[in-house]
Amino acid sequence: MWADLDPVGRASSGGYRRFAWTAEDHTLREWFAAECAGRGLDLVEDRMGNQWAWWGDPDTDGPGVVVGSHLDSVPDGGAYDGPLGVVSGLAAVDALRERGFKPERPIAVVNFGDEEGARFGVACAGSRVITGAMTADRALSLTDADGVTMAEALRRAGRTPDTIGRDPDTLRRIGQFVELHVEQGRALADLDPTTSAVAIGTDIWPHGRWRIDLPGTANHAGTTALADRQDAMMSAAEVVLAARSAAATNGCVATTGKISVEPGGVNAIPSHVTLWLDARGSDQNAVHTTVSAIADATRRFGGTLSEESWTETTRFDDDLSGRLRDILGEQTPMLGTGAGHDAGVLATAGVSTSMLFVRNPTGVSHSPEEFAERDDCLRGVDALATVVEELSS
Amino acid sequence: MWADLDPVGRASSGGYRRFAWTAEDHTLREWFAAECAGRGLDLVEDRMGNQWAWWGDPDTDGPGVVVGSHLDSVPDGGAYDGPLGVVSGLAAVDALRERGFKPERPIAVVNFGDEEGARFGVACAGSRVITGAMTADRALSLTDADGVTMAEALRRAGRTPDTIGRDPDTLRRIGQFVELHVEQGRALADLDPTTSAVAIGTDIWPHGRWRIDLPGTANHAGTTALADRQDAMMSAAEVVLAARSAAATNGCVATTGKISVEPGGVNAIPSHVTLWLDARGSDQNAVHTTVSAIADATRRFGGTLSEESWTETTRFDDDLSGRLRDILGEQTPMLGTGAGHDAGVLATAGVSTSMLFVRNPTGVSHSPEEFAERDDCLRGVDALATVVEELSS
Repeated sequence: MWADLDPVGRASSGGYRRFAWTAEDHTLREWFAAECAGRGLDLVEDRMGNQWAWWGDPDTDGPGVVVGSHLDSVPDGGAYDGPLGVVSGLAAVDALRERGFKPERPIAVVNFGDEEGARFGVACAGSRVITGAMTADRALSLTDADGVTMAEALRRAGRTPDTIGRDPDTLRRIGQFVELHVEQGRALADLDPTTSAVAIGTDIWPHGRWRIDLPGTANHAGTTALADRQDAMMSAAEVVLAARSAAATNGCVATTGKISVEPGGVNAIPSHVTLWLDARGSDQNAVHTTVSAIADATRRFGGTLSEESWTETTRFDDDLSGRLRDILGEQTPMLGTGAGHDAGVLATAGVSTSMLFVRNPTGVSHSPEEFAERDDCLRGVDALATVVEELSS
Repeated sequence: MWADLDPVGRASSGGYRRFAWTAEDHTLREWFAAECAGRGLDLVEDRMGNQWAWWGDPDTDGPGVVVGSHLDSVPDGGAYDGPLGVVSGLAAVDALRERGFKPERPIAVVNFGDEEGARFGVACAGSRVITGAMTADRALSLTDADGVTMAEALRRAGRTPDTIGRDPDTLRRIGQFVELHVEQGRALADLDPTTSAVAIGTDIWPHGRWRIDLPGTANHAGTTALADRQDAMMSAAEVVLAARSAAATNGCVATTGKISVEPGGVNAIPSHVTLWLDARGSDQNAVHTTVSAIADATRRFGGTLSEESWTETTRFDDDLSGRLRDILGEQTPMLGTGAGHDAGVLATAGVSTSMLFVRNPTGVSHSPEEFAERDDCLRGVDALATVVEELSS
């Protein structure tokens, strides 16, 4: 399966570009359908285009045990983020059948559409629409970089955008959802190497985005003495460093990955800089304290900080996570994550959900260098198969 | 004249947008032609479209004494940068005529085209083309933000772009060029208020542009621990501060007014930042030392600094500047400038050139807040009239 996926949407950089409802995405969806057909799984596409491959009938014997993840990527993304969960789900089905296992409850492997939001800007669009976390109107009016709306993209893909929306029939079939994912940090790699290569997810950290506006005074770069300058770029540099320092002090992470400078000329002193801040952490109060310190630094330069989004801690189902620990052993690490996932969207919608993380030796993700050892991936498949076997018995 | 110019190309911000060969520029050129016609001056447009208004015949009695500047602006520019020199030139002609002065040598007021380079990216295009500092091929192939070439813009303006190029006939008519300009810093304002509101320009500071590339590692903003990050934005912040500090230490100015961040997503750790550096100073060695310190800082973060352009000191004609000082009095301040001007292009081409600067109380320029007191402007006109009277006798 890994060899099949390797070339799809791969750029010369080695990174992947697999955006929702593009030719690359269609190739991946067809590959998934063929893999499921080859295994005799029943493929159901919901109205939003998420693909569910059932072993057993969820409508008569359900709700079922669902595993899987997504196949799309960020720009210049890695091979594992998403595909590892889908491939491991199919491999777990193979492993169970080799053992001669007969499930009492139906089992499904899901391929969620548009998880990364790389094309239309909203992550987890597939799960957000079916849970009602995003309305159909909002989803359909999102546009990509070329101005194409999601409605138009769905239409071009031969779908019927008018029918998308909250989908209780699809949700009702899910008894539990366990999403296996490559770890995107190196918490597991930093543990004793003899400990488990697979961890159980406990929660998604609280996280938010803020916009920081810093004023300056437009002036000539050649003739204005340093002492006479109000240079918004200098303030931005100080706030970037203050954000890092505040995050370190409070045990959080803070990132300023986007900046806009006015007027933006080489010979013009910046009259305004806008920075966007992403801040997260395991502890909600620590994130608030971090952002508050960054707001103070911003105010010292006459600027303002305003919230663009804020999501509180998303806890997975503690009972389910506890059951996974019973199944996989007491030594299995329990891990919170700073990244969003379809599992988080389903958990918020009230579905019993947990995650499994596979060790990432470098912690690198959203990059061509993203990697997991083959042995660790196989341990992930084993863990997933064991979990599915127990949950579906 | 000031009231006529006030509304042309003025945005709601109060700033001006008067780009070369646009409707606003045509309005300004027609205004200039009408002012010259009203004074009985003979208007000659050279092949590049620079407007020369002659009092007397430079071909029989020349070469002449030329004053003037430009009427175009930077985006969101001020009212004085350029227009003050043109208006003062016309007012000086009026003053000389009121005194009943009869010049022995011809006098001209010039309106140089496209001084700011705001539309096509190269400053002083009008003087660069006629002196041969920029080839016709290069000029005509420059494009504006809409992809319109200068060739096409000239054609749309009813001109014949095929004919532009070095123009020895036009240059031969210039005996001396004295460009009056609002000061763009506050060297004059920082002097004792009883000293002259007008200074004599001695030289244009050496200046250059450098490109700074800083590497990082793409990674997930939510899951990558601070200690595991190689965040190019952090390096950029340190280099921005290092540039300011190096400039302060060496008595120069340094500006980082433009930045580009990859991938530029709010939730992506920057994998690459490009900064552009503008550095200038009165002393060439001090500028080199400044840039060298910034290069060291860049290298500490694994980055590279490369030169995009470098212009050595442009000295105006010392004999002419000395003569202006004899005319205006020994107390007249002598001033170098960090800004480029058509006067610098002509000086480099071997024309005898100097400048007069009018006090700017705040030092602000390239901004709607650019200002000069009315009394100081009138002193500028007086000084210019006196200089022209002496030089043309």
